[in-house]
Amino acid sequence: MLTTLDLIGTAAFAASGASIGVYKRLDLFGVCVVGVTTGIGGGITRDLLLGVHPPTALDRWPNFVVALAFSLAVFLLHPLMGHVQSVVLWLDALGMGVFATTGAATALHHDAEWWAAILIGAITAIGGGVLRDVLVNEMPLLLHRDLYATPALLGALIVVAFELWSVPYPWGLVAGTVIATALRMAALTRGWNLPSPPQWGRTS
Amino acid sequence: MLTTLDLIGTAAFAASGASIGVYKRLDLFGVCVVGVTTGIGGGITRDLLLGVHPPTALDRWPNFVVALAFSLAVFLLHPLMGHVQSVVLWLDALGMGVFATTGAATALHHDAEWWAAILIGAITAIGGGVLRDVLVNEMPLLLHRDLYATPALLGALIVVAFELWSVPYPWGLVAGTVIATALRMAALTRGWNLPSPPQWGRTS
Amino acid sequence: MLTTLDLIGTAAFAASGASIGVYKRLDLFGVCVVGVTTGIGGGITRDLLLGVHPPTALDRWPNFVVALAFSLAVFLLHPLMGHVQSVVLWLDALGMGVFATTGAATALHHDAEWWAAILIGAITAIGGGVLRDVLVNEMPLLLHRDLYATPALLGALIVVAFELWSVPYPWGLVAGTVIATALRMAALTRGWNLPSPPQWGRTS
Repeated sequence: MLTTLDLIGTAAFAASGASIGVYKRLDLFGVCVVGVTTGIGGGITRDLLLGVHPPTALDRWPNFVVALAFSLAVFLLHPLMGHVQSVVLWLDALGMGVFATTGAATALHHDAEWWAAILIGAITAIGGGVLRDVLVNEMPLLLHRDLYATPALLGALIVVAFELWSVPYPWGLVAGTVIATALRMAALTRGWNLPSPPQWGRTS
Repeated sequence: MLTTLDLIGTAAFAASGASIGVYKRLDLFGVCVVGVTTGIGGGITRDLLLGVHPPTALDRWPNFVVALAFSLAVFLLHPLMGHVQSVVLWLDALGMGVFATTGAATALHHDAEWWAAILIGAITAIGGGVLRDVLVNEMPLLLHRDLYATPALLGALIVVAFELWSVPYPWGLVAGTVIATALRMAALTRGWNLPSPPQWGRTS
Repeated sequence: MLTTLDLIGTAAFAASGASIGVYKRLDLFGVCVVGVTTGIGGGITRDLLLGVHPPTALDRWPNFVVALAFSLAVFLLHPLMGHVQSVVLWLDALGMGVFATTGAATALHHDAEWWAAILIGAITAIGGGVLRDVLVNEMPLLLHRDLYATPALLGALIVVAFELWSVPYPWGLVAGTVIATALRMAALTRGWNLPSPPQWGRTS
């Protein structure tokens, strides 16, 4: 279950990274590097924080192969996607939801405190996207104006809460993923966002 | 002592990160993400280098809560700070001094060589600020023209030297922090900096 | 052998980082920070992935001293280098080839899977340069249009293949380094690169 969800999230993030690489007019390898980094970056960050050496996403070939395959597919097929850009944002939301819950669950399995598990889940969900945006020299999406980190924290929180309440295993993963993804999608489609800094007659 | 100093440095760095987030017109979450990342980023980097899993700054809630509280305070109160920007630079200098010495002391407690302890102290002091500047897509302050890394290296060196000479425990921390912070403040107020590359009739 | 190659790669990368720092008009410390980070960044990334704490490049002073010495040399002597910029690109190619093979060999010595060893070799070869480009706020060279990651992957693959086929120890390192460096140099001098994304009447 954890492994399958992990691959789904990897594929979604890799496709989002490769799409941005195509938009930036990178060549074949550049597109694949951004796609693979985005796909496996969150998992590598999680494993570094938890002390899993070498990181699972490098040590098991399916993660890399899935990330590479989806990057290549985007490279070849992107002209057909044109108006499918929204599909990528939805896949990205799915990947975020998946990684928030699998990250938190993995942290709990490594005996992290519940507090650390929530933060590590959120970092796993966010890490790949931040690496992507830093690589292509953009200010990370995470910092822009729609809910991104809030759903990630909520998904991780649900996994930890279900574990503390001893809800049988896969329900926390399912509930956390669904709720985090749905909240992010709702924020995207309805333009929800958080308030800006207050302004009281300020210049600059 | 180490823990208290760590929280002081976290608060100072978080406030500096949140201020830059406000200046970049990020929303509530963006400001908090930059603030928290800046506040706990140096400590996470230190723990990754020393193999402390999961990193202390994630595993203990006070660090996160302090970083979040100071980010929120800056978000809400920044219009009152206007001319207090220099206060932030001074707090940043204090955070740098604190993290240089606590980073070096933590490295020594983990049996790092004295050589590695100096470098890890400096990386701890510098790491949060570099993460902050990379997140908001600016060239790191560290690379700009005033003394930044020199005081950090000096503070870490003092901790290591006091340890080698068997000076009783907290004096190295106190002396290193005070001297590193004072040197950075002096550099800021007096415009000290290091020489630029020599130019002998060079174009470009 | 591994240690000597490591120092050669460190020196080459440090010189390339310092040259970019000079080009960006940083001061003495900025140039040294970029140079040292580029020189030892790949090795630190490798050791973080493999769980070597503290990282070898921080724990052994020769790496740091070599990186610092070559950064200082570039800072002082760059006006004499003017037309020697191509020398830097060739040194960078050498550093990439060296780190790809030593990274893969180190990963194998730490019982990484052959699959992980190839990826870790490539990440070691690429890591320092990516850190350099992120620090100076440029889109990483890795993503630009000439073969960069392909030679790194090939060099690491050769080390792993020779190990699997039980070829006596240093031959894999030598063959991998020579072939990776030669391929990168050929790509640079002949303008080889990989195809761009297909375009079928696409706007934007």
